[in-house]
Amino acid sequence: MTSTLVLLRHGHSEWNAKNLFTGWVDVDLNEQGVTEAERGADLLRDAGIAPDVLHTSLLRRAIRTAQIVLDGIDRHWIPVQRSWRLNERHYGALQGKDKKATLEEFGEEQFMEWRRSYSVPPPPLPDDSEFSQAGDPRYAGLPDELMPRTECLADVLDRMLPYWYDAIVPDLLSGRTVLVTAHGNSLRALVKHLDGIGEEEIVGLNIPTGIPLVYELDDDLRPVEKGGRYLDPEAAADAIAAVANQGR
Amino acid sequence: MTSTLVLLRHGHSEWNAKNLFTGWVDVDLNEQGVTEAERGADLLRDAGIAPDVLHTSLLRRAIRTAQIVLDGIDRHWIPVQRSWRLNERHYGALQGKDKKATLEEFGEEQFMEWRRSYSVPPPPLPDDSEFSQAGDPRYAGLPDELMPRTECLADVLDRMLPYWYDAIVPDLLSGRTVLVTAHGNSLRALVKHLDGIGEEEIVGLNIPTGIPLVYELDDDLRPVEKGGRYLDPEAAADAIAAVANQGR
Repeated sequence: MTSTLVLLRHGHSEWNAKNLFTGWVDVDLNEQGVTEAERGADLLRDAGIAPDVLHTSLLRRAIRTAQIVLDGIDRHWIPVQRSWRLNERHYGALQGKDKKATLEEFGEEQFMEWRRSYSVPPPPLPDDSEFSQAGDPRYAGLPDELMPRTECLADVLDRMLPYWYDAIVPDLLSGRTVLVTAHGNSLRALVKHLDGIGEEEIVGLNIPTGIPLVYELDDDLRPVEKGGRYLDPEAAADAIAAVANQGR
Repeated sequence: MTSTLVLLRHGHSEWNAKNLFTGWVDVDLNEQGVTEAERGADLLRDAGIAPDVLHTSLLRRAIRTAQIVLDGIDRHWIPVQRSWRLNERHYGALQGKDKKATLEEFGEEQFMEWRRSYSVPPPPLPDDSEFSQAGDPRYAGLPDELMPRTECLADVLDRMLPYWYDAIVPDLLSGRTVLVTAHGNSLRALVKHLDGIGEEEIVGLNIPTGIPLVYELDDDLRPVEKGGRYLDPEAAADAIAAVANQGR
């Protein structure tokens, strides 16, 4: 028996359009992001994939993407669980900064290390920054030692995996089709885990926005087909190339 | 210690505007209903009430109302549970029928008995009706003997109460502020229970759309103030009068 897992990265947000590092800052989708989510719904409907349960981050752009998608395929009523463990990578002191300006200020090597390195986080974000989530009521239940001030992808994998094992896996093992709407880096971390991708290889892997990525998983929750399949492979290939050029 | 419970009846739907009996038919909010939900968010914000957890029915008009309200008060990330037990009363063979035409066909006495009587349900809706929910995937987990074909308010109370005790009460007892977005009759049933209203008195009680009704509950989950308080008492009074005249 196989289980079906659908990963969906939220569409463009107000800060994608402004080319700012976002991370845990809770910006909304922009108009393009809404259109992407509507298109995601069309792709799921055309593929005949009907999620039984939704898992999202605590961030508006992922929550809203899921609402638009599920509304579009008449599955607005399915159970939903949200967790900070599916949040985007915390970008530390880069949150709120312009990507191009950051590139110019720190140079390409440092910039790419912060953006893509597996194990080097940006400098931490002070709690008194306007872009900090310290004091945000949605994280009030999170002990201070769990509350990130910056993260590298390895950190994201560490904090995402417990949610994978404790919340998502049980749904998959009970035969449910699971939709996860989340973020570029929390989904990269999950894909790294699913496909057994190495620390160097994952650096070059991008996940496009708004295109459902479908994994069929076997009884051991290993992908039947490595890398899964995008519901619009051509658009996915184009978008992956575009993401790679971001900030240039 | 008191707990805070906020009840919110969804705003006007496409079928309110058409004056049709809706029940379990899954129609969307209309523009007025969206505006009502946005106003509900304003009222909650002005009152400084921040729900920690949401409970909704499985119907789009309640789900969407909650999404608009929570988005408006920056609480889109709170946990949510949905249940068919919070659904609107199943209106049986009246679902999809014009209220005025039904009044003319069956006369005022029968009409009011079906609409308002505590214990007389309308005739059951055949499963092959276009307005039936038989075969709707959202009720696939519901054993046939639980799936209503018609309901009176007493039936709604019977199927709503287990959810109150099992899902909502634990949240209240743990100190959470609870938002319930639901329907005219599932909320009337809950109010009947909370305020200890008799079977005859409940017949005359209407709950207006879009205006949060706030109950402070004591340790025994009894209302500190019978009837709770609407966040806009004047608008509530006007709307209650208008609902009473529906179908006239």
